Formats: sequence, C-alpha cells, structure tokens
Amino acid sequence: MIVVLAKQASGDQIEAVAGRIRAEGLETRMLYGVEKTVIAVIGHRPPELLQQIQRMPGVETAMPVGAPYKLAAQRDGQARTSISVGGVTIGDGSVAVMAGPCTVESREQLLTTARHVAAQGAHILRGGAFKPRSSPYSFQGMGAEGLRLLEEAKALTGLPVITEILDPRQVEEVAGIADILQIGTRNAQNYPLLNEVGRLETPVLLKRGMGNTIEEWIMCAEYILAAGNPNVLLCERGIRTFETESRFTLDLNAVPLLRRATHLPIVVDPSQGTGKWHMVESMTLAAVAAGADGVLLEVHPSPDTALIDGAQSLSLEHFTQLMGKLVPMAQALGRPVPAAAAAVT
Amino acid sequence: MIVVLAKQASGDQIEAVAGRIRAEGLETRMLYGVEKTVIAVIGHRPPELLQQIQRMPGVETAMPVGAPYKLAAQRDGQARTSISVGGVTIGDGSVAVMAGPCTVESREQLLTTARHVAAQGAHILRGGAFKPRSSPYSFQGMGAEGLRLLEEAKALTGLPVITEILDPRQVEEVAGIADILQIGTRNAQNYPLLNEVGRLETPVLLKRGMGNTIEEWIMCAEYILAAGNPNVLLCERGIRTFETESRFTLDLNAVPLLRRATHLPIVVDPSQGTGKWHMVESMTLAAVAAGADGVLLEVHPSPDTALIDGAQSLSLEHFTQLMGKLVPMAQALGRPVPAAAAAVT
Amino acid sequence: MIVVLAKQASGDQIEAVAGRIRAEGLETRMLYGVEKTVIAVIGHRPPELLQQIQRMPGVETAMPVGAPYKLAAQRDGQARTSISVGGVTIGDGSVAVMAGPCTVESREQLLTTARHVAAQGAHILRGGAFKPRSSPYSFQGMGAEGLRLLEEAKALTGLPVITEILDPRQVEEVAGIADILQIGTRNAQNYPLLNEVGRLETPVLLKRGMGNTIEEWIMCAEYILAAGNPNVLLCERGIRTFETESRFTLDLNAVPLLRRATHLPIVVDPSQGTGKWHMVESMTLAAVAAGADGVLLEVHPSPDTALIDGAQSLSLEHFTQLMGKLVPMAQALGRPVPAAAAAVT
Amino acid sequence: MIVVLAKQASGDQIEAVAGRIRAEGLETRMLYGVEKTVIAVIGHRPPELLQQIQRMPGVETAMPVGAPYKLAAQRDGQARTSISVGGVTIGDGSVAVMAGPCTVESREQLLTTARHVAAQGAHILRGGAFKPRSSPYSFQGMGAEGLRLLEEAKALTGLPVITEILDPRQVEEVAGIADILQIGTRNAQNYPLLNEVGRLETPVLLKRGMGNTIEEWIMCAEYILAAGNPNVLLCERGIRTFETESRFTLDLNAVPLLRRATHLPIVVDPSQGTGKWHMVESMTLAAVAAGADGVLLEVHPSPDTALIDGAQSLSLEHFTQLMGKLVPMAQALGRPVPAAAAAVT
Repeated sequence: MIVVLAKQASGDQIEAVAGRIRAEGLETRMLYGVEKTVIAVIGHRPPELLQQIQRMPGVETAMPVGAPYKLAAQRDGQARTSISVGGVTIGDGSVAVMAGPCTVESREQLLTTARHVAAQGAHILRGGAFKPRSSPYSFQGMGAEGLRLLEEAKALTGLPVITEILDPRQVEEVAGIADILQIGTRNAQNYPLLNEVGRLETPVLLKRGMGNTIEEWIMCAEYILAAGNPNVLLCERGIRTFETESRFTLDLNAVPLLRRATHLPIVVDPSQGTGKWHMVESMTLAAVAAGADGVLLEVHPSPDTALIDGAQSLSLEHFTQLMGKLVPMAQALGRPVPAAAAAVT
Repeated sequence: MIVVLAKQASGDQIEAVAGRIRAEGLETRMLYGVEKTVIAVIGHRPPELLQQIQRMPGVETAMPVGAPYKLAAQRDGQARTSISVGGVTIGDGSVAVMAGPCTVESREQLLTTARHVAAQGAHILRGGAFKPRSSPYSFQGMGAEGLRLLEEAKALTGLPVITEILDPRQVEEVAGIADILQIGTRNAQNYPLLNEVGRLETPVLLKRGMGNTIEEWIMCAEYILAAGNPNVLLCERGIRTFETESRFTLDLNAVPLLRRATHLPIVVDPSQGTGKWHMVESMTLAAVAAGADGVLLEVHPSPDTALIDGAQSLSLEHFTQLMGKLVPMAQALGRPVPAAAAAVT
Repeated sequence: MIVVLAKQASGDQIEAVAGRIRAEGLETRMLYGVEKTVIAVIGHRPPELLQQIQRMPGVETAMPVGAPYKLAAQRDGQARTSISVGGVTIGDGSVAVMAGPCTVESREQLLTTARHVAAQGAHILRGGAFKPRSSPYSFQGMGAEGLRLLEEAKALTGLPVITEILDPRQVEEVAGIADILQIGTRNAQNYPLLNEVGRLETPVLLKRGMGNTIEEWIMCAEYILAAGNPNVLLCERGIRTFETESRFTLDLNAVPLLRRATHLPIVVDPSQGTGKWHMVESMTLAAVAAGADGVLLEVHPSPDTALIDGAQSLSLEHFTQLMGKLVPMAQALGRPVPAAAAAVT
Repeated sequence: MIVVLAKQASGDQIEAVAGRIRAEGLETRMLYGVEKTVIAVIGHRPPELLQQIQRMPGVETAMPVGAPYKLAAQRDGQARTSISVGGVTIGDGSVAVMAGPCTVESREQLLTTARHVAAQGAHILRGGAFKPRSSPYSFQGMGAEGLRLLEEAKALTGLPVITEILDPRQVEEVAGIADILQIGTRNAQNYPLLNEVGRLETPVLLKRGMGNTIEEWIMCAEYILAAGNPNVLLCERGIRTFETESRFTLDLNAVPLLRRATHLPIVVDPSQGTGKWHMVESMTLAAVAAGADGVLLEVHPSPDTALIDGAQSLSLEHFTQLMGKLVPMAQALGRPVPAAAAAVT
C-alpha cells in the first residue's frame, strides 16, 4: 500500500497515519517529496486498512500495490490450469465448443439440437433448465423435467452437459446431472451461491457480472476457489455500456487481460454478448483469435419459435457454417479443435 | 408491438410475419409506407413474441409499445404508495432519514451511533449483520449476533430497523427482527431471493443493480409485487460508469424518472453512490431537492477505524451538520421532516 | 510517481528502471517489500515518463502522485475564483441563472423568451447562433443573423449573453458580441479551439465532454488557462452511460468533486443532462442543492414547435414555476439569488 | 415515425398531434389499440419533428423508423465501397495493415520504423505530425517538420501515408502530403473540420468518438459524404466504459454491426483500443477474424523511449511476430493479405 498525504497535511497528521499503520504490525517508509509526503507500507495489510487510512485527516489517497486475489492469480513459472470433463479438456491450448439451446423447451427441441451440434463437432452440450428472466411473467424454464431431458441428451450423444444454477438450495439437484455448473451474470456476486458451488468439485463456469470490472470478476472466482473448488472457468459475456445496437458490449479485451492476470481457463459467450444471431459468427471467430480457450453458443432448431432468446440463437445451418470457418482458422493459429469424443447413438 | 419490415422484405415474408402474429390471437394492422412496411399489433402479446418476431426473415426490428411492468406502474388517478413502519411513513411527501453504521461491528459502535442519529432526528436505523463483500477474505458481518444487537438498539431508541438479507435461506431469521429488509445491488436480480421476500409482508428496500437500467430495476420490484408483497421501496445507489473519481455515479435522474414511471416510494443512498464521505452532504441535499422520499446514510462514531466502508461514512458530527441543513431546505420545498417518533431511553 | 516492479523482476531490470528515472534528473527512493520492489520518484517528472516507464521490462505499473493540472487546481488558502460579467458574479456563493432558447430561431422567439426570463429573475441570456447538430441535414442555427438578434436582446433586457462557438475561425465574430463563450460537449477536446479562446479575456463556459472523466475535463480547462485566459467556468451537462431513459446521465457527483479539485466556478445544465423537460425542475433544484454556482436552462415560448431540442425546453410558465421554488430553496441553504441587474426596456 | 399516445390522452390531444403531423405534409394512419392509440406516419419527416411531437401533450413517445443516415447506409444489391490509395485497396475482402509510429519524433525513428513495417508487409505508413494531447504541457508533435519527414519516408518506402488533421485551418497543408487524412476520436464531432475534409477527395479515416454510439459515428461520416467526399473509412478505436484495466474498451461488436448498416470500409485500431502493447497482437487477430477490412497499429523502434503512447506501441520484433500470425490466419478465412506494393529503396 502507498499512502499519499495531502500537500497541507500537518506533521501531526502524518505521524498519526504512520502510527496507525504501524499499530497493524506493518512497516512504514517515509518519503518526503518536493510537495507531498508519501508513506510506503511494507507487509500484508488487512483488507479493511486501505479505506480506513483514506478516511484519516491529511490523507489524499491510498493505493493498493498488487491485486487482491491470491488463488486465482497467475503463478510464476507454473502452467495454466486446464479442466477436463467427460474426455474434453479446456485450457490446454485447444478450442472447446459448448453449444446447445439457451433453454430446454421440449424433448424434441433438445435432442434435435444435441444430435446436430454433436455431429458438427461441439464438445459440450449447453441447455438451461432453471432460467433467470427479467420479467416474472416470462417462461422460467422447465426445471426438474429440463434436467431429466439433459440427462437423456447426454446419454444419447455422449456430450458432457453444462447447465445453470440459480439458487443455493438447488445445488444437489443440479450438480447431480451437470458436468459443469454455470453461474449467470445476475448471480456473479451472489456470494451464498458461490460458497455453495465452492464446496463441490464439479467445474463451475462463472460468467462476468454485466456491471463488474475484471478485478471484481476474478474476486468472484476467488470465492469459489477459497471455498475449496479449484475448477473454475471464467466466461466473458458482455458488459453494460452506452452502446445499444448490440444487447451488450462483448469485451474481448478481457481475454488477453485475463491471460496475464489469472491461470484459469477463459471462455467467451458471443450469443449473450451480442444479442443478435447475425453477429455471432464474427464474434466467435474473434473470441478464438483473441485467445479464448472455449466458446459458449446458443443453437436452436427453430430460432423464430424459441421461447427464450431466439434473436441471438444460431440455427442448425448457421452453426454448421460457423464450425466450417472456426476449425481451419483455429488450426492456422496453431490451436487444435479436437474431434469430439461424442458418439451419437 | 410495432414491427418494422426491412426495405427488401418480400411479400411472402411480410405475410409470414403477419400470420405468425395472428396465430397468437392478436390483431394486425398493415401500414405500407414510402419505403417500408410496418405492422402494428393490437392486443396483449406474450413476452416471448418480440424476440421471436425479430428473428424472422424480412424483419428489421420489433419495438414494444409501453412498459413491461404492470403492478409497479404509475396508476392513473391514484395516489402514490406510501409505506409505514413503526410510526414512520415513507412516500407521503415528507422526508425520511435512515441512518446508522454500514455494518454492525460491536455493541458499543451500534448503540452509540443509534443514540446519536435518533437524537438528531433520524427516523429509521440502518445496520448490516450479513454483508456481501467483494473479497472472501474481508469481514463478512457479525451475522446472528449482529441481528441481536440491532434488536437491542431498536428497543433502546424506538427506531425501526432496516438490515440486509443475502440468502433465501435466511428469510425467517432476518425478517424476524427487521422492519425493512434491504436487498443489495449485488442481489438486485437474484430472483429466488426476490421471490422469497415477495412472500412476506415486511417492506423491502430494493437497491438498483449497479449495471441495471431503470426499467430492469422496476422489473425486479415487479417480481416482489407479483409474489404478493406490495411494500416495495426503490433505492438508487449509484451505477457503473467510466468516471472513477467517485466510487459509483449516483444517478439522480432516476428520481424524476421513477416518479413518472412508478407509484413506489423512492430512496437514495448517497454514501454508496459516492464512496467518499465529503461528498455525502452535497448529494443528500441534492437527492431530496430532486424529490426523493428518503435517504439512506452511513454514519459511524469513528469512521477511520470502521471495518467496512469507512471512507464513505459520516462521523457523528458531520451527520449533525447535515441534518442542520437538510431540515430547513426540505421545509423551503414544502416537505416536512417529521420529528422522530423515537424516544431514546 | 510510484513505480511498482513485478515480483519476478530481475536486479538488472530494476537497476535499468531506476537509472532511466535518474537520467531525467529525478531522485529515486528504493523500497524493498516482502514480495515486490517499489521505486518512489521525487521531483517533477516530464509528462511522457509515466508511459515510458510502464513499458520497461520488469515494471508492473507506474502510478502518478497528484493531479496533472496546475493552474486549475484548488489553491491552498486562497479563495475560489469568481467571474463577473455585466454586473453578475458567478462563483461568489450566490446562484446564477442562465436561461434562454437552445437556439435563436427568430426575432420574436428570442425577444419573447429574453423578456420573460429577465422578468422572472434570470441573470444571463443563453441562445445559440451556431449549432453543432448530429445530422448534416438538420437546422444548423441562424449564424451571423442569430448573433445580431442576441445583441438586440441584450440591449433590450440588459442581460449579458452566452452563446456557443464551434470553429477557431469564428472567434472574432462571436467574441464580438458574447459576454460568455460556450464550448460544447462535442468540442470539449478540440484543442485548436481551446487555444484560440484561451487568447481572449472573455469568460469561457466549458462543457464536459460526454465521454470525458472529470480529470480530462479539468485538463481541457487547463488548456484555456495555460493559453492566458483565467476566466473559465466548468459546466456539467451529462455523461454517456448505459441508462437510456434519460438522454444523458447528469453527473451531479461532479459538483462536490470539482469543488475539492479546482477553484473554478461550477455550472450545471439540467436541460442537456436529462433531455426531458419534465425532469428539468427536479434536476435544477438538485444541482443547486449539490452546490453548483449556476445553472444553464433551455426555455422556449412554444417548445412543441422548437427547431432544436424542444423535448428538453421549459415553457415560459414552467420556468416561472421553477424560479418560484429555486429562490426559497437556495435562500434556505444560505445562498442568495440576486435580483437581476436586468432592466427590461 | 411511430407516435405512441399516453393511455390518458384525450381525443382533442390526439387530434392535435395528428393535425400537427399532417401540417408537415405527411400522411397519418390511426391505430386504436386496447389501451393506447398509435399514429403511424407515412413520408419523409423533417429531422426536427420527432422531438417536437415528443413534447406535445398526450404523447408518450415517438420512435423513428429507420436510420437517420442516407449516403452511408448499406445499399440494396450494391457492392460495398472499396477505397484505393497508392496501389492498396481497402474494403475489397483483403486485409490492409497500416503501421508506424504514433507520432513522428525524429528522422531516424520514422525511417527505421517505416523501413521495418514495409519489409514485413505493411501496406500503409502511419505517423502523427500534429497530435491532440490531453495535457497542454505534453509534446504536441513536430508539426510541419513531421509532415516533411513523412514525405521522405513515403519516397523511401513507396508506402502511402496516413496522418492526423486537427484544425480546419490546416487542411491544405496536411492534405498536401497525406494519402489518407485521419480524424481522431476527440474531433469525431468537430463538424467544421468534417465539412472541410468533406470538400476534398482525399480519403478520410474517421475514428469513433470515445463517447459516441455507432449511429452517431455513422452520422459523422454522413457529414463528410454530404459535403462531397465519398472516400470515408470508419475506424473503431475503443469506447469509454467502466472497465479500467484497458485504456478503452475496443468494441469489436461494431465490426459486424457496421457491416450490416453501412457500405463503408471498416478499420480497427487495437493500439488505442487497448492501451497496452501486450494486448495488441490478440486484438489485431480478433479484429480481422471479426471481419475488419484493415488494422491501424502503433509500432516504435524503441517503445520505452517513445514521447507519446509508448505503453501501447509494438516493438519492431513484436510487429514481425504479429504479421507471422496474421497472414496465415487471414488466409484460412479466405482473406488475402497482399504483398505490399512497397519497394524499399
């Protein structure tokens, strides 16, 4: 921590600040500049101290040195984390494709989509059973019946399954069938939920809160890691900005930034991040070119009858077309897109 | 709903869109313009239809007419809602002051603050027992012991109490002592939690999600109302913008906008909305001048030792000074600041 | 400047960074912490150095200490700047009201408005002759004829006049009649224009760029001050955020922040900052309660025929109503609203 | 235009609105819905009418149908615009690389960089002679001498040159040597400057204003097109958002959105859009994968001594490395990166 004193700070004020810091068992180094005094603090400060010092008379500002996360931080000389589910590895340099309907709507809709994405080379099947909807009057997902259908699709295609969890009371039910648990943007800072999934070993895909900085987002991952679950994937899905032509602003800057800051695998969701199906192909290619370890895509056999998010879902044909561009592009970048372990039965 | 067809839409495409709308039992009015065709849709559309239509070939855009909320909407010719707790009424034209520590840290800290704010005319005591912290390594609140201390402070001062609820599993415990339940910005779209507090009659102060539009925020209130609890207060607490000198951008534009859109009482939190104690007085006065029904203020007997959010807490002296300006200003605007029912014992 | 070295920085890298800083004639203080080394730099660094150091191998980050502006900075123990035009003083604790049409549209429109706002106590007449329009096909203002009408309105009412300048080639023409020159949000970082108005003595009202931080905005003022014109007023007019119910988000947090950072007078424009006439009264009162030295208001005798920005203009009646609330509120806060020097003839 | 009347609008109010619209020579179609009346307006409305109608009593909202730009709009059945300068074509499906120093600092710095980027396959040389700096105390560029050096570099390498123009009074001087004129983000809405470059035939690369929506940005291009210059390139360079880890948020969503909205070529600037050199490679690849017609890159022979923006400049080695990835990736997407016409002498 670096503390900058105000130009007009008195000697007594400066001494009080330094004394306060030393009372926490930390060392201080006083730097008397041309106009201002600076105190450099040596040692691990308690998280509260920064704000407390900022409040003391004579203090202009106090700045942290270094990131507040520990377990999520990029580790010197160690490999990045890779996470394996059902024969698929995410984070080892290859490109993982997670695809499926936004929401499970019916047996036929799910199985048709699952068969298609498996046949086209997707590695993981996505599908929501419990859905957070901005209106209480909208369809909220099929619930337990949706989970059962996901199990059937998994048995049929061999694809591992990712599905969303909304409520700490659902952990057992959802983790019973899911290979990856998804935490959505609206629950990114739902700490009781993060703590609950942190007690499991099931991998968790943590979406970025739409109003959260990258540092805040990594701190949400830190909750899960600190609770004991080392298998966290970070998923960029668009942030809130003044631009309204797209539903959100997909922040691909996050990909290289996360790669420097953390060892966790990085996934991008171009469907949510754009809100418009005709942008999804471009932004999927861009996400992989930027270095994402995987993509999460909404695919629907009949997007114009979808109960949720039809406007951003790819049709089966468009998904096929996208895969036809993604695979050679990734290979040209030295990144394999493994043939799916999936065996559609 | 208004559907705008693309210039190059074919007759078949236009007919398919119109047919799709009529299949939902809605009426269509075709408008053939100079360049484009527009379909006006008469009747209550299902929430899904807008996105479905946007996805159909030949459609340029589909726009909703009117707001998606019903119970929260301003009602023609009816009075605004006012909510009474423990002898205090919020939303009747008077100004309600809710003050107290961000977090209950000790018996002495809470009781000292409670006595002071009561004596200076605050109407409701705030204090957090369960705290959502961005770091898992930070102090998370005193929990059950904090709730017990709030009960003691309430008995001592006669002030009703507002405190935060984080987890749907805590509802009984927290609602057992709270006069108003607070839902924080990080849980603004935690729908299981909104549904749980919607099953009670205890008033709920719903903070705005830091990345949520005003319409999304009102839809969160709609969840609580639709679940059966009519006692919702909306609390503006700052949004995420590019400006970093303040911790958040307190959006006072929300006050006149909410007053047109909804009948619910409006509260402003200048402590969270600025993050700096020296801005709180200005922004509290501004909030009331803009028309807020109440303010929520962090006050601490010793802000530079506060375990949470000391940088934005008013000292006891500054709170006194603020009340000395707030009361005459509100009166000049024709808005009473009632003497507190509180009787400090 | 504080330089934080990366954990893995080598001794040679650290020495290279320190050597580079010393080569600029600055002093370095080395701080060897538990994990990281920090270099504190003593002396006035050249503006380029921060980015150059950030780029050196082994450097994690380099942070400035203190603000980059000098002339605009709040000065110890000195009074805030107040600016007088035509018998009106802005920045002396009183409240200055600048009102008039967004744009001069006709002689009658201007004179009717000018007479009304003068009679109701406005201190300065606003009106645009040259208008920056987002469409090349929209009305761009009356130009020279508009300036002539402003002169006539000034002679008629005695009110000093504020009008916008867009082009460095117009300086003589516009400064010939204007008592205050307005720089709009789209030209806030038009440095050739800032330099030109900096060569005058005419006061300049500098609006905040809609995408600019407060620090960047003050740096724009610094351009004018550095060019020799000490008479700068800062005008908050709303920033770009994700909220779209209002045209912009009026950032009233800027008022207390500017009051700490700079000695320049602070004006708020609630018409531009909201974009909706029915929000203007609330936000004008809020701006003054927050501590603004003045407000800039759009008033039109017939807003629903206005050629520009009718949606955000007050009618004459609404302006009267607003003044009836503003004056007693300001007085209750100890802030006089002087009777206008204006003598309508 | 679609006008939605408020639920409580009276018959007289509705008639007044319809009458007002008809008075402009437009046709109205009345739609009486379950709760609300809607008026569809047929014909080309004057730009002012939308706001005027919004202000009329009884009107809830008025929505435009279709984009406000004409010349910039994507044209049915016509090819996209491609622009040729000095043997290089931008917008024909190939990928154009514009590279060079942010700012011309010396003969040696410029020529070294120019030779290197030409040898590595860049198609156009960038370099600023007049620089808009946020501080009046920072280096403002070499001015006329910088232009002379750019001419020398052009003669040496055969590369066409792009350089920034700041001031309408510089048009002749800068256009005398530039093959492409660059308008920076701070001047994106400087309409006198847009009008001046619109009178030329020299291609103009128009950067997006950091606080501008895509529609506003296209309207800035419309200014240039309407003034007579058909050769406009749009350059995404990052927008202002709450994220501060990167200097700006590079909005790659803009690429597919622009491709639908306009026929103009699309360029991306990953150096400005990230502010960090180590992010530039990722985001350049992402920009091309998203479909950009070209990229604009800052390259410096010694970034840690750069006078401007060293933190975001690629070294010569890093530029070479980037080209080694870009070329095969673009080819895998079916997009040629032509061998430069450049002949370094």
